[in-house]
Amino acid sequence: MNLSEKFRALEADNAPGQEVRQKDDDFKARMLGNIMSGAFVDFSHGDVDAFPPTPGSSKAWSDGFEKGGKQAYTEYRGEAQLRERLAARLGQFTGNAVSASNELIITPGTQGALFLALGATVTEGTKVAIVEPDYFANRKIVNFLGGIVVPIPLHYLGKPSENGPDLSRIEDAFKDGAKVFVFSTPNNPTGFVYSPEIIAAISELAFKYDVTLIVDQLYSRLLYSGEVYTHLCACEIRPENLITIMGPSKTESLSGFRLGVAFGTSWIIERMERLQAIVSLRAAGYNQAALDTWFSEPQGWMEKRIEEHEAIRDELLTIFRAADFPVATPQAGSYLFPQLPPLNVELHTFIKLLRYQANVIVTAGTEFKPSLTNSIRLNFSQDHAAAVAAAERIVKMVEIYRR
Amino acid sequence: MNLSEKFRALEADNAPGQEVRQKDDDFKARMLGNIMSGAFVDFSHGDVDAFPPTPGSSKAWSDGFEKGGKQAYTEYRGEAQLRERLAARLGQFTGNAVSASNELIITPGTQGALFLALGATVTEGTKVAIVEPDYFANRKIVNFLGGIVVPIPLHYLGKPSENGPDLSRIEDAFKDGAKVFVFSTPNNPTGFVYSPEIIAAISELAFKYDVTLIVDQLYSRLLYSGEVYTHLCACEIRPENLITIMGPSKTESLSGFRLGVAFGTSWIIERMERLQAIVSLRAAGYNQAALDTWFSEPQGWMEKRIEEHEAIRDELLTIFRAADFPVATPQAGSYLFPQLPPLNVELHTFIKLLRYQANVIVTAGTEFKPSLTNSIRLNFSQDHAAAVAAAERIVKMVEIYRR
Repeated sequence: MNLSEKFRALEADNAPGQEVRQKDDDFKARMLGNIMSGAFVDFSHGDVDAFPPTPGSSKAWSDGFEKGGKQAYTEYRGEAQLRERLAARLGQFTGNAVSASNELIITPGTQGALFLALGATVTEGTKVAIVEPDYFANRKIVNFLGGIVVPIPLHYLGKPSENGPDLSRIEDAFKDGAKVFVFSTPNNPTGFVYSPEIIAAISELAFKYDVTLIVDQLYSRLLYSGEVYTHLCACEIRPENLITIMGPSKTESLSGFRLGVAFGTSWIIERMERLQAIVSLRAAGYNQAALDTWFSEPQGWMEKRIEEHEAIRDELLTIFRAADFPVATPQAGSYLFPQLPPLNVELHTFIKLLRYQANVIVTAGTEFKPSLTNSIRLNFSQDHAAAVAAAERIVKMVEIYRR
Repeated sequence: MNLSEKFRALEADNAPGQEVRQKDDDFKARMLGNIMSGAFVDFSHGDVDAFPPTPGSSKAWSDGFEKGGKQAYTEYRGEAQLRERLAARLGQFTGNAVSASNELIITPGTQGALFLALGATVTEGTKVAIVEPDYFANRKIVNFLGGIVVPIPLHYLGKPSENGPDLSRIEDAFKDGAKVFVFSTPNNPTGFVYSPEIIAAISELAFKYDVTLIVDQLYSRLLYSGEVYTHLCACEIRPENLITIMGPSKTESLSGFRLGVAFGTSWIIERMERLQAIVSLRAAGYNQAALDTWFSEPQGWMEKRIEEHEAIRDELLTIFRAADFPVATPQAGSYLFPQLPPLNVELHTFIKLLRYQANVIVTAGTEFKPSLTNSIRLNFSQDHAAAVAAAERIVKMVEIYRR
């Protein structure tokens, strides 16, 4: 791929949050019926006004600012004492000890962590196994770095016990020379949580074939009632090279701070720091101070947040299922990924019409797997009533444009 | 270069601010004389406690936080209305109009802007002309992207009228296929400001040979009395592809916010945004709000800041020149780049001894040009008295270790 081709593959006008850059008005000619009334809902990302940032995060920033130079200029991998505290909390959360000095880096968001982890392990010609559907940036980063994407299908619309990535395809990819495997659990966009058995199997395969694993656990704290979460980094048999990625942008609504962490194999963390030194130096110094609120929220705060999301999830599932949209029950996180019936307009036109006619923004399934032209992703971390009304407008819109 | 080689070239233990990661204690065996007393001075970066952030920057952040979701989730290229205001100010400052919608991107620091600008234009095998000495990340970024560095020597220790980059070497590089030329003015580490004639000549050469120019103007506002600054983007004859980089991290002491901007050719800005989407998404949303204080400082604030820096500059120059260290007079910015006489220990050992014995951190000249083993860089944006005392200790240390 030359540079023009690489950047065509990075096209971002349909990426979440970028809808405002779409200048093309041709879709309006396809509009049927009238403009609908109802409060604007942007399902492309969570609404931090409906679910505000962790209590104390703004105060923590101000305290960091008052600390002055010491907080402004941290090591590239993040402030040393903060890393000590975070390492202890992450060790406790995952069940696997983390060394603050060698195995942890603070990054500008989990996006930054993903780019650095892949940048540290992928170059021209590196084969990288990527789940489909999964977070859209995985594929784009690998393309930019010159790596070769080896797709691994994820089954997510079947019975819970039958869902998951195709393990034989994973082993085939590893046999065929894939050196890196990156995936998110809970999966973005479906909310599927990899089971203990699947996690153990992936970890053993990576150990057997000496594959580097990059596990994106961004949403792992927003786990719904009755679900079990498994940390790959705590598996008994695990690969030599393993990076886990997390951050407080979602459940904790700290996205406006751009903070994330990666932890795991020290030589990869070391490379990530060297790369961070030329990419963005460090996560903004004052912002790092807000990480001290992470895993240290007021008692009951997280439980309430999960309950409120679960209630929205359940009501949206009811609405979409009543309309016969196939949709998996998210086990964690705040994404819903319904499949739509065949429409008279193509998906990107329908999504533009949704925005124009129904005052609702959603993200196209094609961002997560290029062939998924029949699915949309909703981040349902929204005002409950507004989300329900918007979901009902989506159903109405599908009725209007149904083939 | 394979990935191991690339990351060896990214070695960052001698980079400014990373001194704390040096674990090797062997240098202590080389110590002569006693530990010196005196306040710790870290010349590797400016002291934001001595020169605090722009008035109102912390308040601007808090106001941004209060705005909530609108400020947390901006377009990847930065909040639209803020870009309007910034474009107007940058147009006025440079003398060349900037389109807010197509020609401007807000980045996490100028480091982020540099990485994105080079990432948008350099790939495996691209020849990139790079001034030596210049900001250390330029060379490292090009290496990481697989580009080929074509060095352009900068003369900076001669008579002012004779200083500057070797224009014939620039033309040779362009003739020889260099597609990109990146340089900083004022130059980091020497404080040399490219003259109107040199800027016009570079601009015309880039036009003639269709070379993309990336001009790092990070320090252009801290211009000392009697000096003239020339904005390449306002030249009459200029290349089709041109990106200018600036930010409020230095003179304005907003480094802890990680904010920068790049402006210029729209297709490059578009690519930079696509790359930012996978590298870090956006400059932290709340932090972006602090950019509104930029070019909008209280009356007289910038003039006072420049005066105070000029006074420190002049006193340090006097100290180093009395010790017969060749050193250029910085025309702008807060870097001094003295050359040391021959020493009994090699430069990196001397720098470790400086830290251990004299309580002073400086940056090795080798970071800016690999062969500069006889120079050190000081960021003199420090408490005036502490900087003077520390410079005197540097002179004493040189006397002790002089060959």
